[in-house]
Amino acid sequence: MAEPVFKHQYRVIYAECTVGNHVYYARYLDMLEVARGEFFRQAGASLLQLQESGTVFPVIDLNIAYKGPARYDDLLTIELWINEMKGIRLTFGFQVLQPAGHRLAEGQTRHVCASIDEKPKRIPKELIARFQSFVRVQKNPD
Amino acid sequence: MAEPVFKHQYRVIYAECTVGNHVYYARYLDMLEVARGEFFRQAGASLLQLQESGTVFPVIDLNIAYKGPARYDDLLTIELWINEMKGIRLTFGFQVLQPAGHRLAEGQTRHVCASIDEKPKRIPKELIARFQSFVRVQKNPD
Amino acid sequence: MAEPVFKHQYRVIYAECTVGNHVYYARYLDMLEVARGEFFRQAGASLLQLQESGTVFPVIDLNIAYKGPARYDDLLTIELWINEMKGIRLTFGFQVLQPAGHRLAEGQTRHVCASIDEKPKRIPKELIARFQSFVRVQKNPD
Amino acid sequence: MAEPVFKHQYRVIYAECTVGNHVYYARYLDMLEVARGEFFRQAGASLLQLQESGTVFPVIDLNIAYKGPARYDDLLTIELWINEMKGIRLTFGFQVLQPAGHRLAEGQTRHVCASIDEKPKRIPKELIARFQSFVRVQKNPD
Repeated sequence: MAEPVFKHQYRVIYAECTVGNHVYYARYLDMLEVARGEFFRQAGASLLQLQESGTVFPVIDLNIAYKGPARYDDLLTIELWINEMKGIRLTFGFQVLQPAGHRLAEGQTRHVCASIDEKPKRIPKELIARFQSFVRVQKNPD
Repeated sequence: MAEPVFKHQYRVIYAECTVGNHVYYARYLDMLEVARGEFFRQAGASLLQLQESGTVFPVIDLNIAYKGPARYDDLLTIELWINEMKGIRLTFGFQVLQPAGHRLAEGQTRHVCASIDEKPKRIPKELIARFQSFVRVQKNPD
Repeated sequence: MAEPVFKHQYRVIYAECTVGNHVYYARYLDMLEVARGEFFRQAGASLLQLQESGTVFPVIDLNIAYKGPARYDDLLTIELWINEMKGIRLTFGFQVLQPAGHRLAEGQTRHVCASIDEKPKRIPKELIARFQSFVRVQKNPD
Repeated sequence: MAEPVFKHQYRVIYAECTVGNHVYYARYLDMLEVARGEFFRQAGASLLQLQESGTVFPVIDLNIAYKGPARYDDLLTIELWINEMKGIRLTFGFQVLQPAGHRLAEGQTRHVCASIDEKPKRIPKELIARFQSFVRVQKNPD
């Protein structure tokens, strides 16, 4: 059975590539932010709207494994899903794929739900309802 | 006679280089910010202190000519001086040099002095006194 | 009569914004590269294809005037056109617009056509034909 | 007993800060590259020299925990040590500290030793000798 996943396409530019024509290791994190932003937007609550209503999701930790190089002009697919959504915690799993489907990177970013003054708070119920379909059960990334 | 100039050394990292091992054209602007920050700090008024006391210097325009590629691990010298300092206007001239002295980039960034809420205001007299020695007379960049 | 222009939409992310919620001055250059890349692609010759066939277009200088701040999550429109295309020279004019049409930045980037080993060469005739409709006559940016 | 550690100081610039005046989560990876570069250089073998002699150390995975925000103009201390150095594997532990010593981030980056054409190879004996004093025994990061 297909697992729930959000997909975002991303075109690699020169600014992201370094010597040897591969995407610099930090730039995947920028890409992931783009994809998460579109995930929230498509779910009906952009990060800007959430921020303006007093809810932010800072990253508290992340891990990423690099499996192969992304190259200039590659049209990558970034896949996102939710590994955990409970109380104040929201964890995204991700993988980054080449056009042919080869996996270039995978990992997860863990976030807390917080108020603007950075105090943890429970994820709003409305968001939980909107995100529920992207929660992956029994994800065992390792 | 030697002209007044502020010098800052900057080591190129992989993140700044792109395919073909040259520094990405936008990264020179980041380097220039580093150098301007150190210029203000050495003059006795860091940009953070100025900001906290209500004075900022947003860039209103810039031009830059690229003369040759900076490479990974190059220890560049960024030279700054002041082309204009009058009323609300502060203009820096700059050049970026290789270790051997070869010029890689040159140009200028024009700033206005403004309050935190982005209203133009005259450059504080104290700063004018501190920066005076870096004003270059009769600079003809072209 | 409408002037020829290429339009590309670009969504601002957090990574590009700095203190005070405005896009960092160097990030406009990254955006412009994205737009130029799509310009070439739409004209039928991606920069990657051109590079693989031995033609590159390094920036030799640029100027940019900043008119107002772009903000997080703004969906910007980057407009490109050609100010000069002759011999080895290719010059793009650009402006960056807010959703409501307010102009945030404008300027031009000058490129030379070169071989992979960075020797200047004439722009291939095929490209000239493809780009001709974007040449703006009598553009006087200043 | 004091554990072996390499320390590098790093000044935060505007380009690295985002809305709310905290360093963007991806920029710590850029900083870490700066620190690793200086670690290799101080050990007598710059990454450029190693690359030129056919040895590179691509990152294969990393994890990072964010403990608190770094701010504009903070003079951070990046501490590096070696968690593992064996065969083809080289793992750095790190933490990023505020001037007052408060820990802002910690984690590790795992690298493989490889030839320029990206084939894994054993870490050169000379490097092992040079790096030995930075190997931390019984590091339990969690």
